[in-house]
Amino acid sequence: MEASRIAERTLESVLDRLAEERAAALERLFQFLAIPSISTDPAYHESCLEAAEWCADTLRCIGFAARVEPTGGKPMVVAHWRGAGPGSRPHVLFYGHYDVQPPDPLEAWTAPPFEAQLVEDPQHGEVIVARGASDDKGQVMTFIEACRAWHDTHGTLPVDVTVLLEGEEESGSPSLAPFLAAHGDEVKADIALVCDTGQWDPKRPAITAFLRGLAFSEITITGPSRDLHSGIYGGPALNPIRVLAELIAGLHDEDGQVTIPGFYDDVCEPSPEQRDMWRNLGFDTGRLLGGVGLSEPAGERGRSMLEQLWSRPTVEVNGIIGGYTGPGTKTVIPSQASAKLSFRLVPDQDPQKMLDGLHRFVADSLPADARVTYTGEGGSPAVGFDTEAPAFRATADALEYEWGNAPVIVGCGASIPIVESFRTRLGMDSLLVGFALEDDRIHSPNEKYNLTSFEKGARSWARILAALGDKNAGS
Amino acid sequence: MEASRIAERTLESVLDRLAEERAAALERLFQFLAIPSISTDPAYHESCLEAAEWCADTLRCIGFAARVEPTGGKPMVVAHWRGAGPGSRPHVLFYGHYDVQPPDPLEAWTAPPFEAQLVEDPQHGEVIVARGASDDKGQVMTFIEACRAWHDTHGTLPVDVTVLLEGEEESGSPSLAPFLAAHGDEVKADIALVCDTGQWDPKRPAITAFLRGLAFSEITITGPSRDLHSGIYGGPALNPIRVLAELIAGLHDEDGQVTIPGFYDDVCEPSPEQRDMWRNLGFDTGRLLGGVGLSEPAGERGRSMLEQLWSRPTVEVNGIIGGYTGPGTKTVIPSQASAKLSFRLVPDQDPQKMLDGLHRFVADSLPADARVTYTGEGGSPAVGFDTEAPAFRATADALEYEWGNAPVIVGCGASIPIVESFRTRLGMDSLLVGFALEDDRIHSPNEKYNLTSFEKGARSWARILAALGDKNAGS
Repeated sequence: MEASRIAERTLESVLDRLAEERAAALERLFQFLAIPSISTDPAYHESCLEAAEWCADTLRCIGFAARVEPTGGKPMVVAHWRGAGPGSRPHVLFYGHYDVQPPDPLEAWTAPPFEAQLVEDPQHGEVIVARGASDDKGQVMTFIEACRAWHDTHGTLPVDVTVLLEGEEESGSPSLAPFLAAHGDEVKADIALVCDTGQWDPKRPAITAFLRGLAFSEITITGPSRDLHSGIYGGPALNPIRVLAELIAGLHDEDGQVTIPGFYDDVCEPSPEQRDMWRNLGFDTGRLLGGVGLSEPAGERGRSMLEQLWSRPTVEVNGIIGGYTGPGTKTVIPSQASAKLSFRLVPDQDPQKMLDGLHRFVADSLPADARVTYTGEGGSPAVGFDTEAPAFRATADALEYEWGNAPVIVGCGASIPIVESFRTRLGMDSLLVGFALEDDRIHSPNEKYNLTSFEKGARSWARILAALGDKNAGS
Repeated sequence: MEASRIAERTLESVLDRLAEERAAALERLFQFLAIPSISTDPAYHESCLEAAEWCADTLRCIGFAARVEPTGGKPMVVAHWRGAGPGSRPHVLFYGHYDVQPPDPLEAWTAPPFEAQLVEDPQHGEVIVARGASDDKGQVMTFIEACRAWHDTHGTLPVDVTVLLEGEEESGSPSLAPFLAAHGDEVKADIALVCDTGQWDPKRPAITAFLRGLAFSEITITGPSRDLHSGIYGGPALNPIRVLAELIAGLHDEDGQVTIPGFYDDVCEPSPEQRDMWRNLGFDTGRLLGGVGLSEPAGERGRSMLEQLWSRPTVEVNGIIGGYTGPGTKTVIPSQASAKLSFRLVPDQDPQKMLDGLHRFVADSLPADARVTYTGEGGSPAVGFDTEAPAFRATADALEYEWGNAPVIVGCGASIPIVESFRTRLGMDSLLVGFALEDDRIHSPNEKYNLTSFEKGARSWARILAALGDKNAGS
């Protein structure tokens, strides 16, 4: 038999094993879901430890060298599977998290949130309902079940695998940076597989390849040295709320373009193919906007909604405050007004350069007697992965085999902190593949994960591991 | 002797009596100042009652029929002096208040605030230092001492006088409206003499003849039906802070003129004489602005500061809030943002018409998907007194006799609630004459009232009463 034929049979037997294990795999997921590992609530600290131990035990059962690594907060689960024999094999780091959101409001659940149910859903068939079913326990188990099937069938995995499961993803990952500082070398791999995202729709998988960056600043305008009575001073006294409003209004032109000089200098236009792909996705702009009470896309005129979200930088005002904001009327001209601004950035835009541009723009438009200060500035650059890299192509092909549709290469309007951390701290790119669906109600009552997401997710990982192990893929 | 010569001698003897009584008058004022009648602090309720009784007793001693009239809060002092004989005489209502501001911070006083001291001031000569010395006990006593001197000398007053002394001026006058509803007919006179304002400078008296009105509204802009994640929605989602900022920025043009259509339709320009008078006052714009950290007048280009404050309407933003305003960063696109707006109005502008204009302006500029609501709207019209009315002229002449300088006819950028109440509830105009000075530190530690303010104030009222009693003045 030729090599590819052998590889196909090798994979087929893994997929067969997944089929045999369906009931047992579901039983294991239900055990995991039964642990109320709510990281934001100190009352559930022991449950978080229990979930970490459960994950380590589970990984040990399928040949991983696993441990629960203490941190200043919830521990990390760290596990390694290394192939025998000489020579180096591709090495992947799988990342997921074992903590979950609080289930409140409890009364909105149709069944107890930590007693997983298999429920018939009119649209999706059978779905697993429980807190964490989709975010992220179900997704984590797709990968572990794929590893288990490989291990059960062939006693080996196609690539070296490190697993890192975090217990504080839902509470801001405070222990991640210290952990990576101490153990980065241990977990660094050729590429990270991050399973905490979703599909395009129930039939089309997705790989997230573009993540916008962020720059942020709080701008404070000071006018008079104290709050003034608008009767005594109103008219001739500079009002910092008006100054701030004029600055904010001046940040965009009538076409929704940002007016800060140089703002678009480093922005790469998406390729015509990419733009066509996004246009042809049949994205339902009206449905997304309608869901939040809007009807028309605002923002840059002439740019589709997906194009804006995935490939265009923005300037937003996230908060504003100044003067009297209590009940009733107080005719004051305040001394100060301030606004929190944030920029979403695209690849090649430098956060500090963007903030410098803001400072120049404000300095150039500030009227006499108005002073400006900036606080709390920071940011992180956007991420754009090379969609032609061998590991990316191999993963995309594996997903297409499983789903019968090529994965949609999507962007994410927001940064994903773990991806940013792996990139800046470990110099490691990520492949963002997940099987969640938009209607999974993550963070909400009656969170669910489609049974097909769980089962085809595991099959997808079985295929991806095989593809990454292929000598032509690697990274 | 001709009539005017008799009148002059009649007045001279009253002024002589005031000179004889200097020490006794000061002693009476010090007694009044010793009562800590702080209306905003319930611990001083009994002191407020004591101050009211003190005033009523004092007025009874000089021939008034005086009583302390209970209200839901601090009582009113109501006193009448009616001339004997047939025919109607002019009737004036004197208004002042017996309550004072809290003296905090106590440690900033050079002497106990309720133990009045006569202190040598390098600029002003002897000054009376105590809480309430200027605001308003000293001013009230200028009028009462004038009445006393008339009573002592001639056994009569030149006009019928009603005195109304309020005990809640420093706490928002909550009992005034119910009192006027119940006793308005009793206190209504031809004109009110309100003694709670100041002079132009130590040598030039003033009559306040223009009071700006007010219209106010809280405008709330709603965009998305809930707060959105700026990563997921930023760009295409309408941001209500931006909408609000654009509205606010659009309310004024580059020359500082309000852009609401019709805003200036009913505005009367001040007469050239009035404008010249204001220009020639030598008003120190730099000093007023410099005191609050500003250097240049903002507002309408080409209008002097006094012209703006006393004769021009404004639109101000008194407060703004929207989105995330806590510490740090939250990349939210908020559902709502709101601002408190207030208009300062000049005579003939109708508050409701101004608010209607705002509503149309906003409706015309609102983008798709933005909704607007208004709350807490209200207002009161501006007041402009007829400076050619006989009572006004008589008062101005009397002040010029006393001070050797014609009174400056000034405006006040703010409304004065008691004037508004007398006007709308009793249909009665007011003459606003007071002897306070800008540096009297009212509401602050070491409040003072110049001894000359007290003594020449009493002489001024003695003259004004005579002038209003003259058959050519009246009202």
